[in-house]
Amino acid sequence: MPHGRRLAAAARSAARTDLLDEYLGECKELVVQHIKTIIPSDGRYGTILYRLMLDYPLRDAKGLRPMLSIACCRALRGKLEAVLRSAAVLELYHNAFLIHDDVEDQSVMRRGRPTLHRLHGVPVAVNVGDAMLCLSLQPLLENMSEIGLGPSLRILQAVSRMTRESVEGQALELDWVKRDAWDVTDDDYVRMVEQKTAWYSFITPLVVGGIAARADNTCLDALTEFGRSLGIAFQIQDDVLSLRGEPEAFGKEIGGDLWEGKRTLILLHMMRCASAAERQEVEEILALPQPSRGGRNGAARRDVGAVFKRLVNDGELTAKGYRRLKRLNLDSIDGPAKTAAHVRRLFELINKYASVQYAAAVAQRWAASAQEVFDTKVAGSMARSVHRDVLQAVVEYVHRRHR
Amino acid sequence: MPHGRRLAAAARSAARTDLLDEYLGECKELVVQHIKTIIPSDGRYGTILYRLMLDYPLRDAKGLRPMLSIACCRALRGKLEAVLRSAAVLELYHNAFLIHDDVEDQSVMRRGRPTLHRLHGVPVAVNVGDAMLCLSLQPLLENMSEIGLGPSLRILQAVSRMTRESVEGQALELDWVKRDAWDVTDDDYVRMVEQKTAWYSFITPLVVGGIAARADNTCLDALTEFGRSLGIAFQIQDDVLSLRGEPEAFGKEIGGDLWEGKRTLILLHMMRCASAAERQEVEEILALPQPSRGGRNGAARRDVGAVFKRLVNDGELTAKGYRRLKRLNLDSIDGPAKTAAHVRRLFELINKYASVQYAAAVAQRWAASAQEVFDTKVAGSMARSVHRDVLQAVVEYVHRRHR
Repeated sequence: MPHGRRLAAAARSAARTDLLDEYLGECKELVVQHIKTIIPSDGRYGTILYRLMLDYPLRDAKGLRPMLSIACCRALRGKLEAVLRSAAVLELYHNAFLIHDDVEDQSVMRRGRPTLHRLHGVPVAVNVGDAMLCLSLQPLLENMSEIGLGPSLRILQAVSRMTRESVEGQALELDWVKRDAWDVTDDDYVRMVEQKTAWYSFITPLVVGGIAARADNTCLDALTEFGRSLGIAFQIQDDVLSLRGEPEAFGKEIGGDLWEGKRTLILLHMMRCASAAERQEVEEILALPQPSRGGRNGAARRDVGAVFKRLVNDGELTAKGYRRLKRLNLDSIDGPAKTAAHVRRLFELINKYASVQYAAAVAQRWAASAQEVFDTKVAGSMARSVHRDVLQAVVEYVHRRHR
Repeated sequence: MPHGRRLAAAARSAARTDLLDEYLGECKELVVQHIKTIIPSDGRYGTILYRLMLDYPLRDAKGLRPMLSIACCRALRGKLEAVLRSAAVLELYHNAFLIHDDVEDQSVMRRGRPTLHRLHGVPVAVNVGDAMLCLSLQPLLENMSEIGLGPSLRILQAVSRMTRESVEGQALELDWVKRDAWDVTDDDYVRMVEQKTAWYSFITPLVVGGIAARADNTCLDALTEFGRSLGIAFQIQDDVLSLRGEPEAFGKEIGGDLWEGKRTLILLHMMRCASAAERQEVEEILALPQPSRGGRNGAARRDVGAVFKRLVNDGELTAKGYRRLKRLNLDSIDGPAKTAAHVRRLFELINKYASVQYAAAVAQRWAASAQEVFDTKVAGSMARSVHRDVLQAVVEYVHRRHR
């Protein structure tokens, strides 16, 4: 490309980045306002519940999913009013899943603040997530008065499919961690990610936007294909970023996946490259549970049995006292768990085999595939518009976010 | 009533009891078969998830809710096929809420077996409950091909209302426990129970049965009123039974509500009757958390700090060793919690003020009100049939189950 054209392309791309940020901000504002109309704030009963339901949606987040619905609908010549309610519902679902995922993964931080279950306890977090899942049905039924029966029912079908894919993907991942499974291939991983991430973060938001704009099935199929590639690229990049980013920039603790024992392309690649001895070592580390609550930075709590032994060695505790303490069975609560040294060792092996680079390259291929689908099957049915430019900017964003 | 007529009435009532058991058994069979068609069992992905989704529904339980839908629909001259799918969905919702309630209440047993989160961990239990909530949408959409658009949409609306009432009721109860609230009146309690129990266990099953039979709004309103009284009676009786029944008979540990610090009419009555000193004592006991996992019968684990102190007193541990152990901050995990002695003391005061009898009498009044609504507003629109007899038998069952 000649210098002049390269510069012009870069300028257009930069303009699109600004556009994307601005567009995201506007959508987020609209969606949050709409979510506030879905979640009632009046009356004595339920007030506490509804306040907590707004916690995650009001935190600082891009609001990518509802934006995709809005941009897609508008680019396909649909109206904002036709899609706004559904977009808000998708954001509610997203936040409900985040709350429960955080419980399931024992995550500590979310969007720069402590996770809901750390603030209010697991019981409340489970209930609030349920409430968000349950309250999402009503606005989808109310869609009928806005966009008519046919599109409303298709959106209900799309959401039904989305939730099924999501829970299946999440179950698959939980199962791998729980049974220390290592018979996981790259293809298994991609399939899991398609179910866990692509369906509810990309495919369904795009398809719902398409349905709201009364797009035909050919167009909806293309949007599905586009969202699939984009979603897979996005999740692999998330894995990459979780080993690279700064905590402030990413809103999630560095190396969280390693603490949680999540199978990622990075880990799977490293395991394939590792020597038998290294592989053995890694499996042993990953089989260790996460340190219990508050324990990640509190090494002292992790191995109580060892502390008891040291007390005996130091002459602070008698053998009889040691036996009495052991009978408390505290080991079972605070037995061996992953330590920072373990996680550093995993990092070391990941670097040794350039596994992050490997995963980044795979993500690039999926992003390129998304670009191709967009160019050849999606963009053609869309009007030249800021909305189409925004979707193009999303593809570009996914292309370069982990460089 | 003359002796002869009393005997005849008793015989009819006994016959209805047998009828109820038989009818429940048949419905349960039908519903379980239908649930197995909703929960896919094929394919590699999701297999684990779907197996766990069937765990609670296959356990030994009456299946009261789907039976109410079926009996109500049939008594109103509707067909079995018109209601079966919705009945199965209500049973799925019920089991999903049970799984999450068990997590939220840290319950130990459910239907004679350990709770799902005890068998498979909290992460899996939360995911399985979500999956059951999410998979319930699809069959409600498929209703359209069986009973047509109008009734299907009304059932979706009814289910949407049901889930909202349930999560609000559950949130209210969790909030009372969490903030040690004692500004709870009997009316507050009844309102909470209406939301938490009556809507999803009685009102919605009956109303869904009515919609499937294309009943008019007057009839649906009467069913709502009937279900409300029945549900409130039922839950108060549950509270009574949890302090009276045998664990085998009730499938839940005796006194569970007291361990969990649940506000019940029984506890509220006792608090009103108690002296200032007793009230203070009760509030202190109820403010204590439940002993942590496995701890309910493992007194030794409950107060680790006290054990450390005893070790020092017994000369097994030095003062320095004590300080080192304290720094492990184990108190926060295993600090003071309710003990069996505490719960026995609550029982003692409950007996002193005859609070169980008080609650039982309130439940009787609600059951009588249910009977009246049934006789005056519901039964008249129903055909004389085994289905109507079964509904009558349910009212009688609720009347006498806690005697």
